[in-house]
Amino acid sequence: MSKDILNTLSPTLLMGPGPSCVPDPVYEALSKPTIGHLDSRFIAIMDEIKKQLQTLMQTGNKLTIPLSGTGSAGMEACFVNLVEAGDPVLILKNGVFGMRMVDVAQRLRADVDVLEFEWGTPVIVDAVKEKLAEKSYKIVAVVHAETSTGVMNPVGEISRLLEGSDSLYLVDCVTSLGGIEVRTDDWKADALYSGTQKCISCPPGLAPISFSDRAIEALKARKTKVPNWYLDLTMIINYWEGASRAYHHTAPINMLYGLYAALDVILDEGMENVFARHKETHEYLVKGIENLGLTMTVSPGIRLPMLNAVNIPEGADDEAIRTALIREYDIEIGAGLGPLAGKIWRIGLMGHTARKENVDRLLDALKALL
Amino acid sequence: MSKDILNTLSPTLLMGPGPSCVPDPVYEALSKPTIGHLDSRFIAIMDEIKKQLQTLMQTGNKLTIPLSGTGSAGMEACFVNLVEAGDPVLILKNGVFGMRMVDVAQRLRADVDVLEFEWGTPVIVDAVKEKLAEKSYKIVAVVHAETSTGVMNPVGEISRLLEGSDSLYLVDCVTSLGGIEVRTDDWKADALYSGTQKCISCPPGLAPISFSDRAIEALKARKTKVPNWYLDLTMIINYWEGASRAYHHTAPINMLYGLYAALDVILDEGMENVFARHKETHEYLVKGIENLGLTMTVSPGIRLPMLNAVNIPEGADDEAIRTALIREYDIEIGAGLGPLAGKIWRIGLMGHTARKENVDRLLDALKALL
Repeated sequence: MSKDILNTLSPTLLMGPGPSCVPDPVYEALSKPTIGHLDSRFIAIMDEIKKQLQTLMQTGNKLTIPLSGTGSAGMEACFVNLVEAGDPVLILKNGVFGMRMVDVAQRLRADVDVLEFEWGTPVIVDAVKEKLAEKSYKIVAVVHAETSTGVMNPVGEISRLLEGSDSLYLVDCVTSLGGIEVRTDDWKADALYSGTQKCISCPPGLAPISFSDRAIEALKARKTKVPNWYLDLTMIINYWEGASRAYHHTAPINMLYGLYAALDVILDEGMENVFARHKETHEYLVKGIENLGLTMTVSPGIRLPMLNAVNIPEGADDEAIRTALIREYDIEIGAGLGPLAGKIWRIGLMGHTARKENVDRLLDALKALL
Repeated sequence: MSKDILNTLSPTLLMGPGPSCVPDPVYEALSKPTIGHLDSRFIAIMDEIKKQLQTLMQTGNKLTIPLSGTGSAGMEACFVNLVEAGDPVLILKNGVFGMRMVDVAQRLRADVDVLEFEWGTPVIVDAVKEKLAEKSYKIVAVVHAETSTGVMNPVGEISRLLEGSDSLYLVDCVTSLGGIEVRTDDWKADALYSGTQKCISCPPGLAPISFSDRAIEALKARKTKVPNWYLDLTMIINYWEGASRAYHHTAPINMLYGLYAALDVILDEGMENVFARHKETHEYLVKGIENLGLTMTVSPGIRLPMLNAVNIPEGADDEAIRTALIREYDIEIGAGLGPLAGKIWRIGLMGHTARKENVDRLLDALKALL
């Protein structure tokens, strides 16, 4: 029964907001023999993954590990480990994922202030500067690559506003990691999280995170226990570090094999080469989109290479075209979210997907359908 | 680099407390082409998984789905969705996983009462009856199969004490599901969770749960939002049910393929046959263990077939023997936890592992090492 559906799955060109196309070594890794989560061979793999993530995240942070949930669990983990009831938190919001941060932090009873910017435009650094002059925050949070709009936020510039302050800097790198530079240490980011199904090109299911020593100090100085046993880093750290490797929860073994292989593919190609490939493929797509008479939603200079928002042309039937793309061409692109639903398409060029031949395939299909 | 470690992984006979051995169709499923989490083909798979889980859990509960985390995330989800600050909760504790429930519920600011029973013995129903006569609880929670000790708790008898009361019945079936009967509806269980890496024989990473209509009513009647965005069932339900399938978080696609295939393997063999195989293999192991001059920790009648606690004989070096088993024989067994550390071995006969030829392999190795 199950075999029928699984065996008829045709490979799909995943050009939406994630998951992205998965390279063969990752598929192979996923089906390697399951071993125990306390097996010394598995611990050796965990140690390798930590090093790979440190390289990709450009950090020396010891607490740099994948958590056992999707990217959203990474967001949850960063907030739940650092927030206590009443803590002042500033969230810079210009899309769905900033909005989600607000919801997450409020549920944890943080005292949340929101600086909102128009969707499709970036966070304005001067506005943040003014806000920080008014009030001090325990946490300032921003999304690097806003997947809902295709906008890149000025994460480095914002970090400079926080120099010398006690605020912890929390950065969402779900969509950026593996596609553009994530400079954890240069940005002095204190809590940073990502997902595996975007530019890392591993199936969804894991959330790489990195915590600075300052963030760990804040975690250790909590007055109350982390109100989430599953994501409590004070315990998870004892499984990922040290000699004894205390059991916390059973690690998702085969998913971690997949991540290990996916990071190896990236580091083997070379980070600089991978970022250049994303940039070139993005530019190639933009040219092709404009040649079709379509327009980009986001202004040049702040566009994400891996998530391209394209305005749906007048008269085009959003859903009919997306459905035809998947049914007739085996190509998935993403719909707009929130206020941009029905107004934009989101074309992902993430990780293994970011190749000119894939862009050609999409452009040919769009040309036929429009 | 990664290829080296992954390619040298020898298949291990997993006879610990999980993960268990994974059958080939599950490995094959894990590496099927990743498709989108809103793709209609994926939604068809989700619908099949719900039906498979309803069958295995013996329930008509509509909210019967796998959550995107390991079994511990299932525990977290059941408590965080149903508990609000100050809610009276009774936890029946006779091992590590009952202890974990206490920690989870206290972090959520429940008013937790604990009835503790000696580890290695079951919950005493009369003691629960007395406690329930004294005080009424919003939630009464128990572990069906206590993985830390190998004891089966009288989940059905406890359920009868709750008849006519307003208490919600929360049952941990992490280790039991797929190895012995889990009678969700007969037990009138309101919130039940499991994991994939035990008797379901899928790698770790997902937590099947089932919520009764009463539990959903309680969830909808909350005064406060669920303080955990990632595991908030009021939102997750909209992705797993209904026509629109609203995006919440990106589902772990390939892990769900694996679960789909794993459940198919079980239902294809037939639940009754699977349970009988667990029972027979367990009896075969007990006989073999006793023939070696070793003794079982738990009394007959309350022993779990899938988790066999064996007393470590005088003079035997716990860690040296476990290390030799894995290094020389490619067999993993589990250590004792908590007060039973160093005193017992935990021999898993879970799912695909529960076969007489595996027992023979272990007994031969133990005989050589002792």
